[in-house]
Amino acid sequence: MLATVMYAPGDVRVEDRPDPTIQKPTDAVIRLSATCICGSDLWPYRGADAVDEPIPMGHEYVGIVEEVGSDVTSIAPGQFVVGSFFASDNTCEICRAGYQTSCVNREILGTGGGAQAQRMRVPLADGTLVATPGVPGDDLVPDFLAASDVLGTGWFGAVAAEAGPGKTVAVVGDGAVGLCAVLAARELGAERIIAMSRHDARQQLAREFGATDIVTERGDAGVERIKELTHGLGAHSVIEAVGTQEAMMQAIRSTRPGGHVGYVGVSHDVTLPGEELFMSHVHLHGGPAPVRRFLPDLIERIWQRTINPGRVFDLELPLGDAAAGYRAMDTRAATKVLLRP
Amino acid sequence: MLATVMYAPGDVRVEDRPDPTIQKPTDAVIRLSATCICGSDLWPYRGADAVDEPIPMGHEYVGIVEEVGSDVTSIAPGQFVVGSFFASDNTCEICRAGYQTSCVNREILGTGGGAQAQRMRVPLADGTLVATPGVPGDDLVPDFLAASDVLGTGWFGAVAAEAGPGKTVAVVGDGAVGLCAVLAARELGAERIIAMSRHDARQQLAREFGATDIVTERGDAGVERIKELTHGLGAHSVIEAVGTQEAMMQAIRSTRPGGHVGYVGVSHDVTLPGEELFMSHVHLHGGPAPVRRFLPDLIERIWQRTINPGRVFDLELPLGDAAAGYRAMDTRAATKVLLRP
Repeated sequence: MLATVMYAPGDVRVEDRPDPTIQKPTDAVIRLSATCICGSDLWPYRGADAVDEPIPMGHEYVGIVEEVGSDVTSIAPGQFVVGSFFASDNTCEICRAGYQTSCVNREILGTGGGAQAQRMRVPLADGTLVATPGVPGDDLVPDFLAASDVLGTGWFGAVAAEAGPGKTVAVVGDGAVGLCAVLAARELGAERIIAMSRHDARQQLAREFGATDIVTERGDAGVERIKELTHGLGAHSVIEAVGTQEAMMQAIRSTRPGGHVGYVGVSHDVTLPGEELFMSHVHLHGGPAPVRRFLPDLIERIWQRTINPGRVFDLELPLGDAAAGYRAMDTRAATKVLLRP
Repeated sequence: MLATVMYAPGDVRVEDRPDPTIQKPTDAVIRLSATCICGSDLWPYRGADAVDEPIPMGHEYVGIVEEVGSDVTSIAPGQFVVGSFFASDNTCEICRAGYQTSCVNREILGTGGGAQAQRMRVPLADGTLVATPGVPGDDLVPDFLAASDVLGTGWFGAVAAEAGPGKTVAVVGDGAVGLCAVLAARELGAERIIAMSRHDARQQLAREFGATDIVTERGDAGVERIKELTHGLGAHSVIEAVGTQEAMMQAIRSTRPGGHVGYVGVSHDVTLPGEELFMSHVHLHGGPAPVRRFLPDLIERIWQRTINPGRVFDLELPLGDAAAGYRAMDTRAATKVLLRP
């Protein structure tokens, strides 16, 4: 089969690799209908993470089940399934509390998960994969693919920030996750949704997804603008979808005392000042999104065509052109690249 | 009247000062029934905070209302009242959300509040003071005094940590606030309460207050012990009542993914590592306790003799001996010193 492998920073190749096989009785093998490139895949691509040996890339996936191990009971060949970047048993105490990404038996399918390929092996299939009500038409595939990571992550950010009726929600970050957080806040019933963005196309999609206000300022100026829009108090709920020090502090400072920060941007060199956090009176919650918690609900909303998160993909390429997809995301020519195997 | 004034580190004097008077129509003047020395009063005493001019000390107080300003409607002379270390209007949007210590009109009565005296002026009396059902007997006065700060603070820690039925709660810190957090966790219905303490007397009081387990280890060893007691997962709820880097990290690392850290120790030189916090999946909430939120409930529990938080006072002195009280707390001869004006 064809699979995407990173050999070195900037060196991504699509090459022939052995087909994956069932290795444990809890595994499934799926044939991918679509996969995509994640912002986090750019770290090794840009040399920020080491590439010590060739890495099979990709961790966002939807597809058709081809084969299941002998212990798998809830998933059957022929079904269209959505999974997430962590495999989880979905039965341990942590999973049952809704934190499948901290499952005591989790297996991380992060960069190196091998999803940018024609086929992939998914561990703990019963706990990880969720089948759609039927095999969807091609037009719904990008929406289900978004649910695999960016939608589930934005959704968790909105839930962690307690977005809901009567709330003013601000979103820091206008990448695919931030835009999906806007969509989630709308679906959760937020009264007012402030998207922080200075890119025309992303502002427009934020509005389509439910943003009522756009703030173009960043850092301290961005905080001031949020305060002006909220009677000087700050937003009730702020979603952080970047992961930098500046974005985290902007999120904390934009939140009113007693409000909630939901942070889903993967932290990079962030250190939080204890005294300021103490005096801020905010609630802070986040981490690797337990996408599995939300999948049944998200799948239903997509199946019913209530939401269209696939709109975040602004470039679609055949899997064979994965290298061009990496270049497009690296140069910011594209926000999010979908690959068709 | 007599009042406690700090002139320099280590130099605390009780001296004659002018009686306080109503300065604004929202003020009240109270005659103190009891006051006490706070751990935070030791910072200037030990030279950790500057003493640039003589500071009237104290911010924990209960007493009889002597006079109220013309705008005060809910408090009347002759009533026994409990207040807190922040004055709040209790009507703004932040107060109504339960964060009176971040009231938009708050006045901080921290160190320098002047409560270690025979009389004090309380701003925003309607929003700050809560009257007891009647004037209590002397035996209840220490309990009400505890409600003014350490009980309210421990209670907020337990609420922020979402202590409740079915939960295993751990408390980091065995000072007056930590001990009151144990009491709060019991009252909130926690199933198991682990007090972290290596002092015999405090362990004993922790057990009286409801601790089911005592852990004497600290730091990483303390974390390991909590994990051993919770099937390797960590506690559902952890209350941090110290404010140091070690205690904060101990609290975060003792909490299971999806669990809650309530931190009420005033942060000192704490910086939180973003990546570890992100991966921990904990909820983090805390800050200066909005004691006012809990006062009506706490007063009722004390009045009904359901709880006896005054047990945290292990030394009682006349106000005139305040300097000896400071020495006793500085040398750790006493946990918490009550002063009778």
